[in-house]
Amino acid sequence: MPLLITNGRILTATDDYSADVFCAGETITRIEKGIDPKSCPPGTEVIDASGKYVFPGFIDPHVHVYLPFMGTYAKDDWESASRAALLGGTTTLIEMICPGKSDEPMAAFETWLGKAQGKSACDFTFHMGVTRFDDLAEKQFRDIVKRGIRSFKVFLAYKGALGVDDRELYHTLKLAKELGVVVTAHCENETLVAERQSELLAAGKTAPEFHEPSRPVQVEADGVHHLMTFAELTGAEVYVVHTSCDEAVREAASAVLRGVKAHIEVVLPHLVVDHSYTQKPGFEGAKFVMSPPLRDKGQLPKMWDHLARRTVATVATDHAPFDFESQKTMGKDAFTKIPNGIPSVENRVDLLYTHGVTTGKIDLHTFVDAASTQAARIFGLKGKGSIAVGADADIVIYDPTYRGKISAPGKSHHHMATDYSAFEGWELKGRSDTVTVRGKVMVRGGKFAGGGGDAHGRLVPRV
Amino acid sequence: MPLLITNGRILTATDDYSADVFCAGETITRIEKGIDPKSCPPGTEVIDASGKYVFPGFIDPHVHVYLPFMGTYAKDDWESASRAALLGGTTTLIEMICPGKSDEPMAAFETWLGKAQGKSACDFTFHMGVTRFDDLAEKQFRDIVKRGIRSFKVFLAYKGALGVDDRELYHTLKLAKELGVVVTAHCENETLVAERQSELLAAGKTAPEFHEPSRPVQVEADGVHHLMTFAELTGAEVYVVHTSCDEAVREAASAVLRGVKAHIEVVLPHLVVDHSYTQKPGFEGAKFVMSPPLRDKGQLPKMWDHLARRTVATVATDHAPFDFESQKTMGKDAFTKIPNGIPSVENRVDLLYTHGVTTGKIDLHTFVDAASTQAARIFGLKGKGSIAVGADADIVIYDPTYRGKISAPGKSHHHMATDYSAFEGWELKGRSDTVTVRGKVMVRGGKFAGGGGDAHGRLVPRV
Amino acid sequence: MPLLITNGRILTATDDYSADVFCAGETITRIEKGIDPKSCPPGTEVIDASGKYVFPGFIDPHVHVYLPFMGTYAKDDWESASRAALLGGTTTLIEMICPGKSDEPMAAFETWLGKAQGKSACDFTFHMGVTRFDDLAEKQFRDIVKRGIRSFKVFLAYKGALGVDDRELYHTLKLAKELGVVVTAHCENETLVAERQSELLAAGKTAPEFHEPSRPVQVEADGVHHLMTFAELTGAEVYVVHTSCDEAVREAASAVLRGVKAHIEVVLPHLVVDHSYTQKPGFEGAKFVMSPPLRDKGQLPKMWDHLARRTVATVATDHAPFDFESQKTMGKDAFTKIPNGIPSVENRVDLLYTHGVTTGKIDLHTFVDAASTQAARIFGLKGKGSIAVGADADIVIYDPTYRGKISAPGKSHHHMATDYSAFEGWELKGRSDTVTVRGKVMVRGGKFAGGGGDAHGRLVPRV
Amino acid sequence: MPLLITNGRILTATDDYSADVFCAGETITRIEKGIDPKSCPPGTEVIDASGKYVFPGFIDPHVHVYLPFMGTYAKDDWESASRAALLGGTTTLIEMICPGKSDEPMAAFETWLGKAQGKSACDFTFHMGVTRFDDLAEKQFRDIVKRGIRSFKVFLAYKGALGVDDRELYHTLKLAKELGVVVTAHCENETLVAERQSELLAAGKTAPEFHEPSRPVQVEADGVHHLMTFAELTGAEVYVVHTSCDEAVREAASAVLRGVKAHIEVVLPHLVVDHSYTQKPGFEGAKFVMSPPLRDKGQLPKMWDHLARRTVATVATDHAPFDFESQKTMGKDAFTKIPNGIPSVENRVDLLYTHGVTTGKIDLHTFVDAASTQAARIFGLKGKGSIAVGADADIVIYDPTYRGKISAPGKSHHHMATDYSAFEGWELKGRSDTVTVRGKVMVRGGKFAGGGGDAHGRLVPRV
Repeated sequence: MPLLITNGRILTATDDYSADVFCAGETITRIEKGIDPKSCPPGTEVIDASGKYVFPGFIDPHVHVYLPFMGTYAKDDWESASRAALLGGTTTLIEMICPGKSDEPMAAFETWLGKAQGKSACDFTFHMGVTRFDDLAEKQFRDIVKRGIRSFKVFLAYKGALGVDDRELYHTLKLAKELGVVVTAHCENETLVAERQSELLAAGKTAPEFHEPSRPVQVEADGVHHLMTFAELTGAEVYVVHTSCDEAVREAASAVLRGVKAHIEVVLPHLVVDHSYTQKPGFEGAKFVMSPPLRDKGQLPKMWDHLARRTVATVATDHAPFDFESQKTMGKDAFTKIPNGIPSVENRVDLLYTHGVTTGKIDLHTFVDAASTQAARIFGLKGKGSIAVGADADIVIYDPTYRGKISAPGKSHHHMATDYSAFEGWELKGRSDTVTVRGKVMVRGGKFAGGGGDAHGRLVPRV
Repeated sequence: MPLLITNGRILTATDDYSADVFCAGETITRIEKGIDPKSCPPGTEVIDASGKYVFPGFIDPHVHVYLPFMGTYAKDDWESASRAALLGGTTTLIEMICPGKSDEPMAAFETWLGKAQGKSACDFTFHMGVTRFDDLAEKQFRDIVKRGIRSFKVFLAYKGALGVDDRELYHTLKLAKELGVVVTAHCENETLVAERQSELLAAGKTAPEFHEPSRPVQVEADGVHHLMTFAELTGAEVYVVHTSCDEAVREAASAVLRGVKAHIEVVLPHLVVDHSYTQKPGFEGAKFVMSPPLRDKGQLPKMWDHLARRTVATVATDHAPFDFESQKTMGKDAFTKIPNGIPSVENRVDLLYTHGVTTGKIDLHTFVDAASTQAARIFGLKGKGSIAVGADADIVIYDPTYRGKISAPGKSHHHMATDYSAFEGWELKGRSDTVTVRGKVMVRGGKFAGGGGDAHGRLVPRV
Repeated sequence: MPLLITNGRILTATDDYSADVFCAGETITRIEKGIDPKSCPPGTEVIDASGKYVFPGFIDPHVHVYLPFMGTYAKDDWESASRAALLGGTTTLIEMICPGKSDEPMAAFETWLGKAQGKSACDFTFHMGVTRFDDLAEKQFRDIVKRGIRSFKVFLAYKGALGVDDRELYHTLKLAKELGVVVTAHCENETLVAERQSELLAAGKTAPEFHEPSRPVQVEADGVHHLMTFAELTGAEVYVVHTSCDEAVREAASAVLRGVKAHIEVVLPHLVVDHSYTQKPGFEGAKFVMSPPLRDKGQLPKMWDHLARRTVATVATDHAPFDFESQKTMGKDAFTKIPNGIPSVENRVDLLYTHGVTTGKIDLHTFVDAASTQAARIFGLKGKGSIAVGADADIVIYDPTYRGKISAPGKSHHHMATDYSAFEGWELKGRSDTVTVRGKVMVRGGKFAGGGGDAHGRLVPRV
Repeated sequence: MPLLITNGRILTATDDYSADVFCAGETITRIEKGIDPKSCPPGTEVIDASGKYVFPGFIDPHVHVYLPFMGTYAKDDWESASRAALLGGTTTLIEMICPGKSDEPMAAFETWLGKAQGKSACDFTFHMGVTRFDDLAEKQFRDIVKRGIRSFKVFLAYKGALGVDDRELYHTLKLAKELGVVVTAHCENETLVAERQSELLAAGKTAPEFHEPSRPVQVEADGVHHLMTFAELTGAEVYVVHTSCDEAVREAASAVLRGVKAHIEVVLPHLVVDHSYTQKPGFEGAKFVMSPPLRDKGQLPKMWDHLARRTVATVATDHAPFDFESQKTMGKDAFTKIPNGIPSVENRVDLLYTHGVTTGKIDLHTFVDAASTQAARIFGLKGKGSIAVGADADIVIYDPTYRGKISAPGKSHHHMATDYSAFEGWELKGRSDTVTVRGKVMVRGGKFAGGGGDAHGRLVPRV
C-alpha cells in the first residue's frame, strides 16, 4: 500500500528539513514539500507526522536471538525479538551466527537463517561467527560471503569455546581483507579472565559484583591492542564491539591515528548503567551481568563524550535475553555461571534519545548517525540508514512529546521474552509512534500493527 | 528559472542513489526517480546528468580574497576569486575578515562585506577575525554575530600584527562559548618563529627552503596544544585551521579524546605538495611558501590517512593569491618577506578528487563530507552541504571522465588573478561540468556561464 | 676535628654496605671496615653509628629564604632556615635568586649571596632567577655563571611580575645551552590563572579552597608542554619544578621519550597532603595554599609511583615560610592574596622516610637518590650527594628507630621561623641523629650542635 | 694476593673521584687517597692506574653460551665465552637456562650450572627459563629460586618450542611476584612471525634481508604491550629484553607511567648496526640475523636517546655465537633457518664506550650504570656493580687512550669461538687494560692473564 508521510521534520545523519515523503512498493520514491495526496495513487495511506521527527529506521548491529550459551538458550525467538525491536524503533537487526567449534559454518548459517526467515517482523542480516578456521571452513566462509553475509565476528575471549587463536585470527583477517569484509571482534583476553575468575571464586567472591573485577579494563584494552596489531599488519577493516571503557576506546583510537581501519561500537548499557548495579541486594545484580562488564561510574561521561565526538561510531545493544528466575539464577553460587546479557533491543533507541538527546549530550544528527546510518555504511546494508529516494522505506515517526515508563511482562510496555527489564521503571521522553519496514506499517501509535506483518522481515542485501 | 537534473548519480556524505532533482526558486524542491519534464513548470531547464555525479556544491571554509598582508595586497578580488571557485566546483567561500589591531571590528566587517557583496558570483560568509579584544571590540563582535557571522578566527601566530595574546584568546573563547560560536585558529607559536627566522637569516639562510625550518612541526604542535588547553577550560568549540603535520593532528586528536570540542582542517597543498618544492631552483620555491609550511614528504600519507579515517574533518585551501613576479619576489633576499600563500581555490576539488578519490585514498562519501558537508555543519551554513529537499540548489554535476591539465594565465584553464599556478601542468581526472548556485547555472560545460551571474552571490545565513 | 663514624650501614643511591668512614679536614678520606680508632690522628671524634643508616647529606634543590613576595617577606632568614634544614637532615640548600624585573641580576646575586654568606649553618647555592633578558642582563648572567651559579630559574607563571615572556624564555634557554647550564622552570600558564582568579572572586568564591580551581591541572600541563617545546628546539637541559599532578608529569615524560633533556621535581607537600586540606574550616586551609596547588587525593599515589619508577628525579620542598597569623591572613577576603608556600624544609627528609620508605612505597636507594644524589648530579654540586672518598663529609646518621611527632613553635621540634606547621602532630618514624657538614658536626642527638657552627655554611662549588 | 690499585679515576654510576683501592681476599676493603703500599700486607700487587678509569666490573645480563637452538649448538663453551667476556671488560655473565618443554627445570638447572661451574673464568648466574608451568615445574622453580636463581625468563615468541602460553605466563608472573623474582621476557608475537615467514618464503623471499619484514616493529610492540598488561594485573616486576625499536620502548615506558614495574634492556647490536647490514651481498647478511631483528637506521638515534635519558636501563648483548660457514649457512635457502644471534660478548663494553661515550651520546656515569650497575641492582647480584668497600673486587682498569681494531679468529683480537666477527675491522677508542674478578687479575695489559684463573668464576649469590 503506498504511503505518504506529511508534515514531518526529516532528520538524517546530516540533514534536517521539513518535507513530505512518499513511498511506493518498498522504497521511498519521492520527497517533496507539500505533496498533494490527491496526486498519489488510490489507496495511499496518509500519515500526518506534524510535530514529530521522521527518522530512518534504526539499526542494531549487535544482537543475539537464537543463542545457545553457557548451557542454556536465550529466551527470545525472532518473533518476540523482532517485535520488540520494532516497537523500540529498530527496523534492522544484525545477529551473530554462532557455531560451535566443531560445527560447519555453512550449516550454522542455514540454521541461523532458518530461525529468522519467515519469523522475523523486521529486516535482518548476520555477522558470520568465525569460531574455527581451516580449509573447509574457509571455503564455506567464501560461500557465505557470496550469500551476502559481508561481515565476520570473532571472539578473542571464550577461547576453547567460541574464541579464535592467533593463527585463526590472522587468517580470518586476511580472508576478510581479500573479500572486502569487515571483521567485528569481542576483545578481551580470555586467559586473564579465566585466571581471575578462579582466584575470585577460590576466595569466596562468588556474587555478581565480582564479575567486573574478573575482567578489569586492562583485559579489554589488551584485547583491543592485540586486534589493532593484527588489523594493521593484515590491512583488514575491523570493528570493535561493545567497548566499555575509556582505556579500550583509546587503544582503538590510537590505532586509527596510525592509519588502522577500525570502527568502535558502544552498547546502550555501558552508557546508562554502571558497576554499582551489580551490587544490588538479593542477587538482583545478576540482571546486570554482561561482558565486558559494566564499569565504574566515572567511565560513563567519558563514553558519552567519545560518542558525541564521533570517536565511537555506533550504539548497539549486544541484546542477549536470559530470564532472571530460571537462568540468571544458575549463577547463584558463582558469578561465572550467570548467563551474560542485558536484554535491551526494545529500549536502545528510546534510552539513547532520553539520556542522550534530551540532555544535550548528543545532537539529533549524532543520534541518527550512531543508531542507524553508521551501521548501514560500515556493514553495507543496502537501502538502509537514510531517508532518501530509492532507499528502503524504513521510517520511524518519532514522538518527542511522549512521556512514559519502561516496564516488564505482566505490565504494558515490554515485548522481549525475558521475565525482567534491567530498566524497570525508567522514564522515557520519546517514543517511536509509527514504524515502517520497506513501506509496511509495523507499528502504529506505539503498538504493534500486527496482522500479516509478523513475518515481514527479510535478509538485507549487502554491498 | 526552474531546473531539472535528470539521470545523475547523487552523492552526499552518506547517500549514493540515482534520482532526478528538481529545483524551483533557489532551492531543491523535489527529488524523485524519473520526474517527467512535462510535469514541470514551463521554462524548466533540463540538464542530463547521465554518467555524472551530482554533488552538493563544495564549500571552501578557509580563503582570503581581500588581504592586506606583509605590506602588499593579494591579487584576487571577489570577481576573480568567486569565478575561479565556481569553475573549480566551489559554491560557497568563507573568508576571514582581517582587521588591523587598531581597526574597529564592525568597520572591518563592513569593509570586507562590501568587497564581496555585489561582486561575488558564489555565496559567501566570513570568519570574524579577532585581532583585539576590549570592551568596544566585544560589543561589536556581539553585533557582528547577530549579523550572522557565527565564527571567529584568531591567530596564535603573527603576534603584534594580527595575533592575540593569551588574555584575548581566553576572552574570545569565553564569548564564543556564550554565543555558541566556533573559533577557528591558526596555531603556531609566534615567538619561536620570529627567533628562528632571525637565526636563519643571520646565518645567511635566506632562500625559500628555509621557511620550513623557521617553523618546524613542534612550533605548530605547541600552538595546537595551547589552543586545546584554552578550549578545554572554557568549553568553547574550536577548529584548527591548516594542520600540516601528524604532530599537530595528534595534539588535537588527543584533546578530542579528553572531550574537547575540536575540529581539524587540512588544506589542499599539505596533501599534495611537500617541502622539497620550496627547494626548486631559481627562486621557484617561493611559489610554495605558506604557513604552516609544506612538510617532509613522509607527512603526506599520514595526512591522507587522517582524512580517510575522518580525524580531519575538512579540506580547505587557505587560498591567498599573490603574484610570483611582483610579490613573491619581495622575498628574494629573505624568505621572511615572501608573501605567504598558495593560490588553490580553483583547484581544491579537482585535485582532491584526482589524488584522493581516483587513487582510492578516500571514498566518495568522504570526499563530499570533507569538501562540503562538514564545513556546512560546523559553521552552520543554512541550506548548504547537502542534496535535500529545502536545501539551496547549490549543485555540482561532476564529470569523472574528464581528462585535462591545470595551467595558468595566458593559457586556458586558470581564472585566479595570479600570474602562476603552483600546480602548472598537473593532470586532472575529473571536472565540474555544471555548477549551480541557488538554482542559477553558473558554470556550464566547464565554462563560466557568465552573463548576469557575476554578482549572484550572497551572504549565507548561519544557524 | 677528624671524625670517625663506625659500624654504620652506608646507604647511597646505588650501594648498601657496612663500613667505617673517616673524615679529615672537610672531606671523607677513607672508607674501610673496622678502622682502628688508634690508627686515626689524635683528637679524632668517634661516633658509633650502630643500628643506624649513614646517608650522604640531603639536598633540597628548591627553597626560598629571602623572599619578597606578594608585598611581604618570608619569615625565615638563613640562620633559622639553615638550622631547620640541618635538624631535618638537609645539608645543602639551593635557593632561588629572585630579582624584580627592573633589578640588575648581578646586584640581586650579591644581595642574595650576602643574606646567606656568613649566616647559613649549612651549605648553599642558588638558581639565578631570570626575570628579564636583555643585553645587560645577559652579560651579567654570564658573569654569574662564572661565579659558579650554574642553573637558572624561570617562571612561566607570574608574568608581569617575575615571569618571562616567550622571547625571554627562548634566549634564556639558548644561553643556558651555550653555557651548559640547567634551566629550572615553574610551569603554569599565567593568563589562565589570572582569568580564573577573576572569575572565582567575581563569583564570591574567595576562600582558600578556590585556589586549586583557579589553576587546574591543565594550566600546569600546558606550561610543561610549552617548556618542552622550547627545550626541544633549543636543545637546552631543563628541570620542571614542583610538578603536582599526573598530567604535568606525563607532558614532561612524553618529551623525554622524544629525546628532550628534562628532569622532573616533585615537592614534599604534593606527596602527602591534598586539596581537601585547603577546605579546613576557620581559614586553616590557607596554611596549605601553594602553587601549583595541592591536588585531588587521587593524584598522590600516582605521584608516588612516578617517584618510585624514577620518572620523577628529585624531591624538594619549595619551602616558602609565611606566618599564618600575620601573613596568610592577608588573604582572608581573597585567596589570591594568601602568600603562597608550605614551610617544610625541616620536615622533607623525615616525612619522605616515614611516608615513603617505611610504607614500602620507595626503597632506600630511591630515597637517597631523590633526596640527595640526583640534585647533586643535575646541578653539578661538587662533592655532594654521595658517600665516597674525596666527597665532602656531609653525612647524616639516621635513626630508623626514632618515634616522635612534628610540632610547631612554643613546642619542642620546630625550628622554622613560621608560627605554624602544616604537619602539626604528624608522626615520624625516623630522625637525623647526627648531621655533619664538611666534617663539622652540626646536629648531635637530634639537637643543633650549635656553638661556632652557626655560620659554617658556604657557597658550594659547581661543576 | 692482595691488590692495590693506585692513582686511578674511579667512576661509578654516581661518583667520579680519584683514590686508591685496596683489595684483600675477594673484596674491596679500603678506599683512600694515597694509600702507602708499605702499609699493605706483604705480597700486595700494586697496579698503577694513572691516566685510566677504574670501573666496576661490567655485567652482561643477557647471554647464551650452552645453547641448543634450531637444531644446532652455539659454538662457545664457558671457557671461550668467559675469556672473551673478560677481555672485553665483562666480569659477570647472566645466562639463560633453556630447557625444552619436556625437560624438568631442576635437571636443566643442573645441566646449565654444570657447563659453567669449573669452566668459567668469570662469575656467572642464570635466568631460569620457564618453558613449561605445571605443578612439578612450579615446585622445582621454587627450589631453583632457593638455590639463588632469582630471575625467570619467558619467551612470548617461539610458542610450541620454548614459548609460554598466556596461562603459563600468568602463573609465572604470579609466582615471581610471590617470590620477589624478576621476570625477563622476549616479547614478540609468535603467530604473526610464523605467518609472515610463511608468506615471505612462499613469495620466494628467502634471503637474510627478509628476516626483518617477517617480524616488524608492531610484532614486538604488541608483545611488550601484552607483557605489560600481565605485569600490571599480577603486580610482578618485569624486564623486557632486547627492545629493538622506539615502538617497543614506548609501550613499556607507557606502562611505567601507569605504575607498572618494568625495566627495559637494549642490546649492543641494536645501537650500532641496522637492517641494511642484512642486505650485504653473498649471504653476508646472515651474520646480522637476530631476533628482534636489526631495524631501520632511523631507530638507532632514538635508541641512544632512550639510553641517555635512562628510559632504557641496561645494555646487554644477547650473545648467541654461531659460526658463519657451518651454521649461518643452514639458512641459505630460507632465512628462517639461519641460527639467530650476533656474537658480541667480547665487544659490548668497547663498542658502547667508543660509539657512546667518545661521541658524547652518553656520559660516563650512564655508561657504568647501563653496562654494570643497573644489572646488578635489578637482578640482585650481591657485591657486583659498584666500587665500594665490601663489594667484590671486580674491577676494570680502562685505558681511554687505546686505539685498535676488532678482528676475528686467525687475527689477534677475537676470543669468541665463532669464525667471524660482525664488527670486523671496526675501530675501538678504548680497552680494558686490567680486569679483576674477586681480587684475581684475569686480564693484564689487554691479554688474558691465564694460568690458574681459567676456572676462577663462580655462581654469584643473589639477594
